[in-house]
Amino acid sequence: MDWQAVLATRGGRMKASEIRELLKLLDRPEVLSFAGGIPDPALFPADAFRTAMAEALSGPAAGVALQYSVSEGYRPLRDWLAGRMADLGVPCDADNILITSGSQQALDYLGKLLLDPGDTMLLGWPTYLGALGAFNAYEPCFDRFDPSDNRAPLDAAAAAAGRVKALYLTPDFANPTGETLTLAQREAALDRAEALNAALIEDGAYQVLRYDGTPVPAILALEIARKGSIEACRTLYCGSFSKTLAPGLRVGWICAAKPVIRWLVLMKQASDLHSPTLNQIATEHVARTIFDTHTARIRTVYRARRDAMLAALDRHMPEGVRWSRPEGGMFVWLTLPRGTDGAALLARSLETERVAFVPGRAFFADGSNGNTLRLSFSCADAAMIEEGMMRLGRVLRAS
Amino acid sequence: MDWQAVLATRGGRMKASEIRELLKLLDRPEVLSFAGGIPDPALFPADAFRTAMAEALSGPAAGVALQYSVSEGYRPLRDWLAGRMADLGVPCDADNILITSGSQQALDYLGKLLLDPGDTMLLGWPTYLGALGAFNAYEPCFDRFDPSDNRAPLDAAAAAAGRVKALYLTPDFANPTGETLTLAQREAALDRAEALNAALIEDGAYQVLRYDGTPVPAILALEIARKGSIEACRTLYCGSFSKTLAPGLRVGWICAAKPVIRWLVLMKQASDLHSPTLNQIATEHVARTIFDTHTARIRTVYRARRDAMLAALDRHMPEGVRWSRPEGGMFVWLTLPRGTDGAALLARSLETERVAFVPGRAFFADGSNGNTLRLSFSCADAAMIEEGMMRLGRVLRAS
Repeated sequence: MDWQAVLATRGGRMKASEIRELLKLLDRPEVLSFAGGIPDPALFPADAFRTAMAEALSGPAAGVALQYSVSEGYRPLRDWLAGRMADLGVPCDADNILITSGSQQALDYLGKLLLDPGDTMLLGWPTYLGALGAFNAYEPCFDRFDPSDNRAPLDAAAAAAGRVKALYLTPDFANPTGETLTLAQREAALDRAEALNAALIEDGAYQVLRYDGTPVPAILALEIARKGSIEACRTLYCGSFSKTLAPGLRVGWICAAKPVIRWLVLMKQASDLHSPTLNQIATEHVARTIFDTHTARIRTVYRARRDAMLAALDRHMPEGVRWSRPEGGMFVWLTLPRGTDGAALLARSLETERVAFVPGRAFFADGSNGNTLRLSFSCADAAMIEEGMMRLGRVLRAS
Repeated sequence: MDWQAVLATRGGRMKASEIRELLKLLDRPEVLSFAGGIPDPALFPADAFRTAMAEALSGPAAGVALQYSVSEGYRPLRDWLAGRMADLGVPCDADNILITSGSQQALDYLGKLLLDPGDTMLLGWPTYLGALGAFNAYEPCFDRFDPSDNRAPLDAAAAAAGRVKALYLTPDFANPTGETLTLAQREAALDRAEALNAALIEDGAYQVLRYDGTPVPAILALEIARKGSIEACRTLYCGSFSKTLAPGLRVGWICAAKPVIRWLVLMKQASDLHSPTLNQIATEHVARTIFDTHTARIRTVYRARRDAMLAALDRHMPEGVRWSRPEGGMFVWLTLPRGTDGAALLARSLETERVAFVPGRAFFADGSNGNTLRLSFSCADAAMIEEGMMRLGRVLRAS
């Protein structure tokens, strides 16, 4: 069978992530890994989910929990989310919410909704690797959006001849940098999207994980403040329970103007009918019962780990290494002296010190900036962080 | 916001299904509905799922069940499925299996893998409505594949100038007709796919629900018999637990040659990372424990309902109405006298007799054959079937 003859052209853009291939090597127990970007499973509210699932699967309720359900998602969960969005300054109702299978699916659907081959997507340099993967399936061009420089991207966008369809941003504690956009940067991003008549995709995956500093309004809230109603807004907000409750149930959402949600409901119907019924029922139960107490608890744990990592970096990094000081999230981003290659460093680091991280190059749509790396503190205790940063410092001094 | 200016061209093909809009009107309790195509929730193995979920969420296992997991799917479930595929005459291993979120997602992924805009997909006239929806997002042309006529489709396909990418078939108890392809028809479909160098998508969603007659080998099994190994095969088999265990957990699979599975794993990673971990663990537990006894039990129930429906049709249908006599599945397909319009009939039927069905036109890619309708017997007991077919007969006699 000659598969190449029948594959769609997008097939040529699919390739295994270099990172994921590397990460397969890191499973060895003697490696201190700061590579993963996953929540600590010890913090999952397993008892609450067990209770919620048992209830949903008892008596006549089971016939509902195990049956097909509507593509837009479980109504009580959409109601709960509408309430949460209102708390973020986004007054809306259940018809502004689509339940997705994690916010990864939200990104896939928004790419599918907006992108024809050759269209331009503006995004950060670096940006979330999974966003590059999701959008890539729809064969766009990627161009750089730098929130601290207002001119360059407009020029680049102009060159794309009116085919800039969207701007993608993670305003809070972004993966991979951990950085947060200021109010002025958010307003500038909105101005840019307005000027281009482009959609603005706001990825709120880490929004709840703020450890200190002053919260900055969501971009969608800022746009509503300008326009009076979510129905007039171009911002498409993507949220997720993966970093707050648990990722394994795959529950996320999109909050947007109703016509957009209606198109996305049709897309969901055609692509997987609906997200699992039981998962939505259980998530609503757990969110309604323990969301605030649970997220307060995990913030306390992650805050201490972030503090431990920043302190250890202060102690152990050699001259010439800079890093972000995130107010939340799971990541610290290191910039190494120019000419250092993160991937080569990882190979040496694994060999000589058995410490792992993610080389930064993969987060850049153009594969630039090899002198960067991402560290995650979410799954490491203070002792592991201290030992790991000491080892990393030795690797860097030896390079 | 001018959304039309930023939507991808595929947006123009998204529209709410006429059927789904109609079905919203059928929720009234006084309507006898044979419209739905869903399993009877009273038959779901809720206790088995409750036990499996409780176990998966207890102790350290919970940290796995609620965590991110690999895109290809839960290994023990893939192993179990490989064993089942071997029982169907498809020797393979776990690396030939991708877990999807229902077989609807399998169809979406295969469309995404194969179709560029303007490519041709051959499929039945009528065919599964959800397949039309899934493929439609990738902007193909649809052309007719008639398994009982070997010439016409080849001509049409030739006209499509080598861009026939795939042939889609549900060989057993198809939705909407309930019909099953003979061995000769399956071999002819394979010949056609070979001649066109096209993929053959085999939808096995109803395969387990055979109530009588002689099982016919899966098309993938026939192709392996020709070629010696799944690795040489162009058939892409889609399966689902939705009709056997429960649809609400959204667990399905694709079984195919390993290079195809590897591309699909990358696609899955980019589109939703993975299907929910807990759902896969629980499904494996339930499948391993009770699959055969459970499916034997539901076959007994559904067989009796099919028998009741065929007997009631014999009693109550007027002259000039023909229907399929399915050996399995959930559907009987009626062909009404030429000129009768199924949609108009439904409106009258709801008004005068409060009985519901699905007009057949929506199942035809070209919207032809309005004089057809689909009845489902899966959720109706014998008394409801008798009463419903009597009413339907009255409606037809009055038209």
